[in-house]
Amino acid sequence: MKHVLGAKCVRCGREWPAEPNTTTCPACGGMLDIQYDYAAIAKEVSHETMANRTEQSMWRYMEYLPVQGLGNRPRLRVGWSPLYRAERLAKVLGLNTLYVKDDGVNPTASLKDRASAMAVVKAEEAGAEIIACSSTGNAASSLAGNAAAVGFPTYIFVPSRAPKGKVSQLMIFGAHVISVRGSYEDTFRLSQQAIERYGWYNRNAAINPYLMEGKKTVALEIAEQLNWQMTDYVALSVGDGCTIAGVWKGFKDLYATGMIDRLPRLISVQAEGCCPLNRAIAENKPWEPMEENTLADSIAVGVPRNADKALAAIRESDGVVVNVSDEEILAAARLLGRTCGVFGEPAGVTGTAGVKKALELGLIPPEASVVSIVTGNGLKDTPNAIKAAGEPISIDPDMGQLLDVMERL
Amino acid sequence: MKHVLGAKCVRCGREWPAEPNTTTCPACGGMLDIQYDYAAIAKEVSHETMANRTEQSMWRYMEYLPVQGLGNRPRLRVGWSPLYRAERLAKVLGLNTLYVKDDGVNPTASLKDRASAMAVVKAEEAGAEIIACSSTGNAASSLAGNAAAVGFPTYIFVPSRAPKGKVSQLMIFGAHVISVRGSYEDTFRLSQQAIERYGWYNRNAAINPYLMEGKKTVALEIAEQLNWQMTDYVALSVGDGCTIAGVWKGFKDLYATGMIDRLPRLISVQAEGCCPLNRAIAENKPWEPMEENTLADSIAVGVPRNADKALAAIRESDGVVVNVSDEEILAAARLLGRTCGVFGEPAGVTGTAGVKKALELGLIPPEASVVSIVTGNGLKDTPNAIKAAGEPISIDPDMGQLLDVMERL
Repeated sequence: MKHVLGAKCVRCGREWPAEPNTTTCPACGGMLDIQYDYAAIAKEVSHETMANRTEQSMWRYMEYLPVQGLGNRPRLRVGWSPLYRAERLAKVLGLNTLYVKDDGVNPTASLKDRASAMAVVKAEEAGAEIIACSSTGNAASSLAGNAAAVGFPTYIFVPSRAPKGKVSQLMIFGAHVISVRGSYEDTFRLSQQAIERYGWYNRNAAINPYLMEGKKTVALEIAEQLNWQMTDYVALSVGDGCTIAGVWKGFKDLYATGMIDRLPRLISVQAEGCCPLNRAIAENKPWEPMEENTLADSIAVGVPRNADKALAAIRESDGVVVNVSDEEILAAARLLGRTCGVFGEPAGVTGTAGVKKALELGLIPPEASVVSIVTGNGLKDTPNAIKAAGEPISIDPDMGQLLDVMERL
Repeated sequence: MKHVLGAKCVRCGREWPAEPNTTTCPACGGMLDIQYDYAAIAKEVSHETMANRTEQSMWRYMEYLPVQGLGNRPRLRVGWSPLYRAERLAKVLGLNTLYVKDDGVNPTASLKDRASAMAVVKAEEAGAEIIACSSTGNAASSLAGNAAAVGFPTYIFVPSRAPKGKVSQLMIFGAHVISVRGSYEDTFRLSQQAIERYGWYNRNAAINPYLMEGKKTVALEIAEQLNWQMTDYVALSVGDGCTIAGVWKGFKDLYATGMIDRLPRLISVQAEGCCPLNRAIAENKPWEPMEENTLADSIAVGVPRNADKALAAIRESDGVVVNVSDEEILAAARLLGRTCGVFGEPAGVTGTAGVKKALELGLIPPEASVVSIVTGNGLKDTPNAIKAAGEPISIDPDMGQLLDVMERL
């Protein structure tokens, strides 16, 4: 915490002390943003200090993070996921340079582990006894796993449409799970009422300003893995808005401390059936709620709770917005699998679907360099993977039948 | 390859040159074992050289591996999975010291990535055009993913009982998948016939001696992560026998080169419904085929193809054998999830189930130190996770219903 100056409201601009259980602006209810002393950080970090660091997790970047320390409790190893040079996929797309950041290899198999690991540390600092959240799935399963590792009980609210894979994680991790027969918005509201009533620690990303600070570590890693030479663009899927805001914060932190010398432009990818943030940018007017019509459950968020920060991030970065159909999402799942060996869930591959479409629409040039973030593992949503890639050929254990199959292939 | 001396038959003892496409002993059909010049390796490695190494994958240990180099093709980042100190789980089990090695965070979410990454490199060295294997699931999905990353076509044979999660991976990675309506043994035999007929590169672990060399890297990592101070025991689930043989080879390699000063005893854990290897050890007679009656699909292997090496490994290590019921496997899944935040597939948690049972039976003492290897991610088999942990509570978005639920909890 030594570099944290406070928490500033993104709506009214008021500044507040950054306490472990700080949530939204006490004055106007706006989201708070954690403020750092960048001059002080810059004195402590350099490309060389980072290169000599042995910590291989999101906690590699302690100078940039709002925590005192990690204590001795055992924790899951979150972050430091691989960044792959995706040469074959780039060729297929007709793009000069493409990297794929596979955040699906995190302990509970999504980028949300970064936020949840942070939430658990802040809940400990706050002296909390129980952590709660609502989620379309990944925030929930990551909270359940990261909390279980240190022994925290959790109460978790998911919409009933959450995929089985994610729900099975929650149950295995021993969370108290409330499946809500309603939309994500209904689920979110019920969780807020319960959190208020029972005084649980709040891990809702749209309320708790620290979670974005966890998520931003994906940007810190990308920059370091690129040897601090940023690509022109960074593409990712957008639902609630917290992740894209966190990614942008990460790059700005690095820029403010002299670790990178230019900022990438963000490519905000939403599903055609649920794109309130991209619509607001495209039409240059305030966002409005939308239906949640997409199979990419993690980004099916009709009422994005982090709209303020997300819209600011896209605009500040001179970002590109692009919406993709469910068919384009499934096609991207196949493409990533076949050319990179990376298996993403629908929302996980949506960023890549957006890169393809942005190229086709001429929104980004073929000579660009791009990082595409895969935000979650395809194993979380097997039925949609089967929908994308089909069923195998089934035969009896008989060489004759095999020869027939081979002839057809 | 500079430290490889050749390939020695574990049955007849004859020695052969180690070629990239070497399979079984040309004289007797026995499994071959890759031989190293340990004196030469010992001159090149030390605790200090390892500590200074930046490579964070299974290729960290090149001196111990039978490859020339990796070339420039993009590869998945396999290995260097976390080793967690499992204090809360140890307390629950009444065990002094327990570590959990989570190999479910590998790129395709199982330990088998280590063997498949090796197979892909050797197939490239052999100038192969297609790689094939049969598998209960994880060898298949890991081959499909690791091959897709470098652009290799694959033909993969799975028994029809393979869980959906694993099959969905194969399809996404673009493998040609043949689902065989029969046992693993039927599937294996059909794949062998096809491999012979079409001249594909053979990634069957019971045939190809290099795969075990990939798998042994899990042991090399465990030792290094323990700061070269080995635990008394290392527990893992056993099916075909290749993994336990590989783990043992890894520890012996380290011992032979002076990197560790004692060898752990292996705890070989099989399912009660399919334990041909453990039965052979317990009754001290040759192994005999068994039915494949367990929900832990990855170790439901009635005819273990790597029996020779596996039995030798268990005996040489003065190992402990213990069989667990399906109920004990599901209970271990809950335990690992709730106390460690680690979600394993049934075969993945079987090692931990065995540790619990071995303690209860007095086969290992409470003051022992143990590493338990989680060999695969629970997301690969969601239905069995739900079976282990149950379904969530379902309510309408209504505070009244929530209050009722809270009262009941």
